[in-house]
Amino acid sequence: MNGTHKRGPATVVELTEQLRQFAEDRDWQRFHTPKNLAMALAGEVGELLAEMQWLTPDEAACLMADEELGGRVKAEIGDVMIYLTRLADVLGIDLLAAADDKLAEVALRYPADRVRGSAAKMPRS
Amino acid sequence: MNGTHKRGPATVVELTEQLRQFAEDRDWQRFHTPKNLAMALAGEVGELLAEMQWLTPDEAACLMADEELGGRVKAEIGDVMIYLTRLADVLGIDLLAAADDKLAEVALRYPADRVRGSAAKMPRS
Amino acid sequence: MNGTHKRGPATVVELTEQLRQFAEDRDWQRFHTPKNLAMALAGEVGELLAEMQWLTPDEAACLMADEELGGRVKAEIGDVMIYLTRLADVLGIDLLAAADDKLAEVALRYPADRVRGSAAKMPRS
Amino acid sequence: MNGTHKRGPATVVELTEQLRQFAEDRDWQRFHTPKNLAMALAGEVGELLAEMQWLTPDEAACLMADEELGGRVKAEIGDVMIYLTRLADVLGIDLLAAADDKLAEVALRYPADRVRGSAAKMPRS
Repeated sequence: MNGTHKRGPATVVELTEQLRQFAEDRDWQRFHTPKNLAMALAGEVGELLAEMQWLTPDEAACLMADEELGGRVKAEIGDVMIYLTRLADVLGIDLLAAADDKLAEVALRYPADRVRGSAAKMPRS
Repeated sequence: MNGTHKRGPATVVELTEQLRQFAEDRDWQRFHTPKNLAMALAGEVGELLAEMQWLTPDEAACLMADEELGGRVKAEIGDVMIYLTRLADVLGIDLLAAADDKLAEVALRYPADRVRGSAAKMPRS
Repeated sequence: MNGTHKRGPATVVELTEQLRQFAEDRDWQRFHTPKNLAMALAGEVGELLAEMQWLTPDEAACLMADEELGGRVKAEIGDVMIYLTRLADVLGIDLLAAADDKLAEVALRYPADRVRGSAAKMPRS
Repeated sequence: MNGTHKRGPATVVELTEQLRQFAEDRDWQRFHTPKNLAMALAGEVGELLAEMQWLTPDEAACLMADEELGGRVKAEIGDVMIYLTRLADVLGIDLLAAADDKLAEVALRYPADRVRGSAAKMPRS
């Protein structure tokens, strides 16, 4: 794979494998330590926030209608997903299982009929 | 869905749908604006970093061998994935397509034979 | 200094010295590497965001009127300042000079009469 | 103040006043809401992390010896300080007092003679 990229991860597993291959092809595995990847993840999330920081809530709600801004936000979301997937792979964590386990836990802690419509009762960490 | 959670998103699409349902059941959609979700995403990434911040590189490399620490890190990774998936859904962005597009672009910008083994030539944004 | 803390840094220089002493008293200097402190800084900023994430703009504007929430936000701001000051010290950077240099640069790049009132012309990085 | 910037905040109070004037001159106060400034702060911290993410611990320890890299890191530290100072001002929080209060609290919670030299006993949030 010399600069070419066969398109199309349809699943997280495929994306994970493509990213692993991408790092191997460049001999970048040694830089992809958990701490370094976590920092890279935070860096990309920072860029995502920077794209939205001065928007009013109304502007943010329809930001995808702005082709240029929407394209930048989509690219940042892609970057965040890339580093998150790579970090999970390096740690041996199944990304979807981790999300699913957490969702199950949160569903128990925040039963719909007790928290409905209340921001004060939303998770804050 | 009253506090129960049928297990098992096997795909990003299924996780997306479960999270949408979760928000609807609690009437939380109005709080799930792009800016709020981006802040929540950054908050969870911050917690993930906090779990690793004082570890030496060696400790971080095998952090999953520590059951308690590993469990906390997995839970934080799950939280990050949850907010990232929810944010992409609210914006109408296909998470895997966004990552794939970005990977294709990065592969072109960083051809393996020109950047191999060099941290100086890794993406820094 | 065994768990006691003489009150009152009136200046950044004094805060810097107190934090240096604090780390020395606990033999924590070796953990206070630039990367670790940067991660700790990001972790605290994440907690700060988490305190505000579900607030409406109106609620956020007067959050200090809520004693409990205001107290938590002030504490997080304090944490962020602590790690920022400590990181600058470890790197040998003068925090106020760094801010001043940057402000001078931004003032040149964003002349008041050309950018007045325009969010589109605000810094986005 | 039309693009000019009289040099030299020697104190946090002076920096605070210069930033307030800077925003007023550009009619940017309305964008400087607590949530927007918190997002901008997180964005700048993300850029700071991005500068360090691929460095080895040894490289990071002497990063200021590299003029170009050191200059970029100093500029990012300046940006972080600018948004932190501005956010504290908008919220009516005394930045140094907030740090001092927090340090006093942490000193009580982490007495030197009980936590000396132990990363496991360092604050993790």
